[in-house]
Amino acid sequence: MTPAGAGRPLTVTGALLDDERVGLRCVGGRIEAIGPAVSPAPGDEVLDAAGLLLSPPLVNGHTHAAMTLFRGSGGDLPLMPWLRERIWPVEARLEAEDVYWGARLACAEMTRSGTTRFWDMYWHPEATARAVADAGLRARIGAPLIDLDGDGAGMREAALCSLDHLAGLGPAISPALAPHAIYTVSEGSLRWIAGLAAERGVPIHIHLAETSQEVQDCVAAHGERPAAYLDRLGMLGERTLLAHGVWLDPAELDLLAERGATVVTNPAANMKLAVGAVFPYPGAREAGVAIGLGTDGAGSNDSLDLLADLKLFALAQKHAAADPTAIAAADAWAVATGTRAPLLGAAAEPLAAGAEADFLLLRGDHPELAIGELASNLVYAASGAVVDTTVVAGRVLMRGGEVPGLEEIVAHARERARRLGL
Amino acid sequence: MTPAGAGRPLTVTGALLDDERVGLRCVGGRIEAIGPAVSPAPGDEVLDAAGLLLSPPLVNGHTHAAMTLFRGSGGDLPLMPWLRERIWPVEARLEAEDVYWGARLACAEMTRSGTTRFWDMYWHPEATARAVADAGLRARIGAPLIDLDGDGAGMREAALCSLDHLAGLGPAISPALAPHAIYTVSEGSLRWIAGLAAERGVPIHIHLAETSQEVQDCVAAHGERPAAYLDRLGMLGERTLLAHGVWLDPAELDLLAERGATVVTNPAANMKLAVGAVFPYPGAREAGVAIGLGTDGAGSNDSLDLLADLKLFALAQKHAAADPTAIAAADAWAVATGTRAPLLGAAAEPLAAGAEADFLLLRGDHPELAIGELASNLVYAASGAVVDTTVVAGRVLMRGGEVPGLEEIVAHARERARRLGL
Repeated sequence: MTPAGAGRPLTVTGALLDDERVGLRCVGGRIEAIGPAVSPAPGDEVLDAAGLLLSPPLVNGHTHAAMTLFRGSGGDLPLMPWLRERIWPVEARLEAEDVYWGARLACAEMTRSGTTRFWDMYWHPEATARAVADAGLRARIGAPLIDLDGDGAGMREAALCSLDHLAGLGPAISPALAPHAIYTVSEGSLRWIAGLAAERGVPIHIHLAETSQEVQDCVAAHGERPAAYLDRLGMLGERTLLAHGVWLDPAELDLLAERGATVVTNPAANMKLAVGAVFPYPGAREAGVAIGLGTDGAGSNDSLDLLADLKLFALAQKHAAADPTAIAAADAWAVATGTRAPLLGAAAEPLAAGAEADFLLLRGDHPELAIGELASNLVYAASGAVVDTTVVAGRVLMRGGEVPGLEEIVAHARERARRLGL
Repeated sequence: MTPAGAGRPLTVTGALLDDERVGLRCVGGRIEAIGPAVSPAPGDEVLDAAGLLLSPPLVNGHTHAAMTLFRGSGGDLPLMPWLRERIWPVEARLEAEDVYWGARLACAEMTRSGTTRFWDMYWHPEATARAVADAGLRARIGAPLIDLDGDGAGMREAALCSLDHLAGLGPAISPALAPHAIYTVSEGSLRWIAGLAAERGVPIHIHLAETSQEVQDCVAAHGERPAAYLDRLGMLGERTLLAHGVWLDPAELDLLAERGATVVTNPAANMKLAVGAVFPYPGAREAGVAIGLGTDGAGSNDSLDLLADLKLFALAQKHAAADPTAIAAADAWAVATGTRAPLLGAAAEPLAAGAEADFLLLRGDHPELAIGELASNLVYAASGAVVDTTVVAGRVLMRGGEVPGLEEIVAHARERARRLGL
């Protein structure tokens, strides 16, 4: 690996884009020029991409990065026993350093499998932020706000402190307010969060309508379904990201479309925890809802390979609709690269002059990509193993499929998992 | 790569098995000894497996290997339009050399992702057999017998010829009779196949109950459901492999269990073609049906990575049952390694003295395997990219994740796909 020096331009040569050989020059973290005629200037770092396919990176719209430490500890349990027996008792002992190494491992896995930007929600968000900065990725980081135990004041203080901390970490890392869910945060605290989000202009990232129980409980407690409840509290807007949305009904989808909120579907976690349905993608698309794709945390997936989950997403939608045309490969790819949900932060035209210099080089000679339509192969055939090179802000984070320092990261993460009894 | 010379023993040292360091010595294609005290004899080929996990290989119970040429050509179509518009017109132009290179590519992909044995059904079966022999894998190969056009005599002649050819290719390759389906082979021909299979002692490999239409048509035409129909024709027994079985009802499952037939589920293809349900695994398991896992052909999957499909299998079952305990990781792993269906041909105890020397060495330091329970990680976190080394009959087919000659195989397959207009 040859990381770009501070300010040193990077020029990629000979990459394939739509069957054409192109060059791509990155200056100051952005794409300065892209096209057949682009070649390196003297002094540029040069990356020879002969035979590799230029691709926009993937966006993981919902994860809990540090939960790589919980991988393989799910025990094939339902959601609530899994949380109560496996997750919460360990989380009570979590230290910032655990979160740092869990998130470093997650960042390495995402770098390997072509994800360069993610939305996170987890304890010790400042440790996740440090891991993201050290890994060179981009993330929107929120602390999960919970006041189940009634300590609304402590929660608010922690939220304000996290916001201040996360807001000052440069352009690649930005904050969100992340109330865990409507069943773990009180109505009063949710109202307070809505106000603070509006005042600071930061997004809200919340789990919503993951289980039918959540919907039933919401209707019983508030006389309305989850999306309507959030709307009444002032929480729905263009800066609102709702993770899961499995049990949203058509009226809720219309409401979300009207408010401009984004839903991130996490098919692997929903199927593994067997919540009983999949996100109603066809209805959401028809209603005009902004849609993204996420892995959820490795504890309930258990992989962070979004290219693998992309297949699961498309297949689960076809299966649920009993219709193989329910989603086309190109649509699924658009969702996974973040172009169907501006809130996620990916450029609308990611491979164009002026865009952030975030891109992948894929192994076009890899068996899974060598024959047939590219979009179809990316969705149905590829895993993250087709990614050769990952570049963020003009910095080469991976080359030849090898993330530098991975061995050390794995060793630290293992040690932290052992410490936690995982 | 250092392939074992003919007859030269191979000794693996320092591999991890259940957290213990073991050696494994292979002589004459079989495991001679395995355990902590096993070490190389003078003259052995030695494979240092320090840090790698010893694992049984996977068994792909249903595929059409050469259909790698059709990858990325599915167009997100339903089953029948896909067959009529994309597959059959091209298959009419297929030559043996197309099938050879398509199957070589499939073998390379399976070697890479840890599958060492598969059940195949495709045109020009002798070309597939040659590819399997050249690749060093094991396969049960059948020609798809179809007499839709009424040419039962031609079909029978071709079947006999294929049987004779495939029966003489050594212990790693063996024949099957592969009538395509009950809706493409006449009742008379199915009876003839049943008789021939009994006479020669070869298995029958047939698609069954893939769509509800097939079941309806069978009931309309024969007054009984597909499994009962096959049973009446004498086609159900311990040497019968039924691919798909999505629409089998409880009475059919009991019948299959009684006859000792095997069902191979292909969750990716079933979900991609949106056949409307998944194989009733919980019921089949309770009834005592032998069960295997397959990818189906790359044209309708579109990957041959059985480790990836293993996740899909487990998740689809949990989802269908709305119960995260519907299948445990260890059960899914047992199905994928062929230990729940003796017909598939895997050893009941694959890592024991006397068994065929077929095994994998996995990257235990790979992020997806580094933390947590191994079975859970293999099912929910891993893809084929965790496989470092693949050994069949004591021959090292892959080391360090690289299949020798892959570049040439990909180039040939691409050329054949181009020739076919794919």
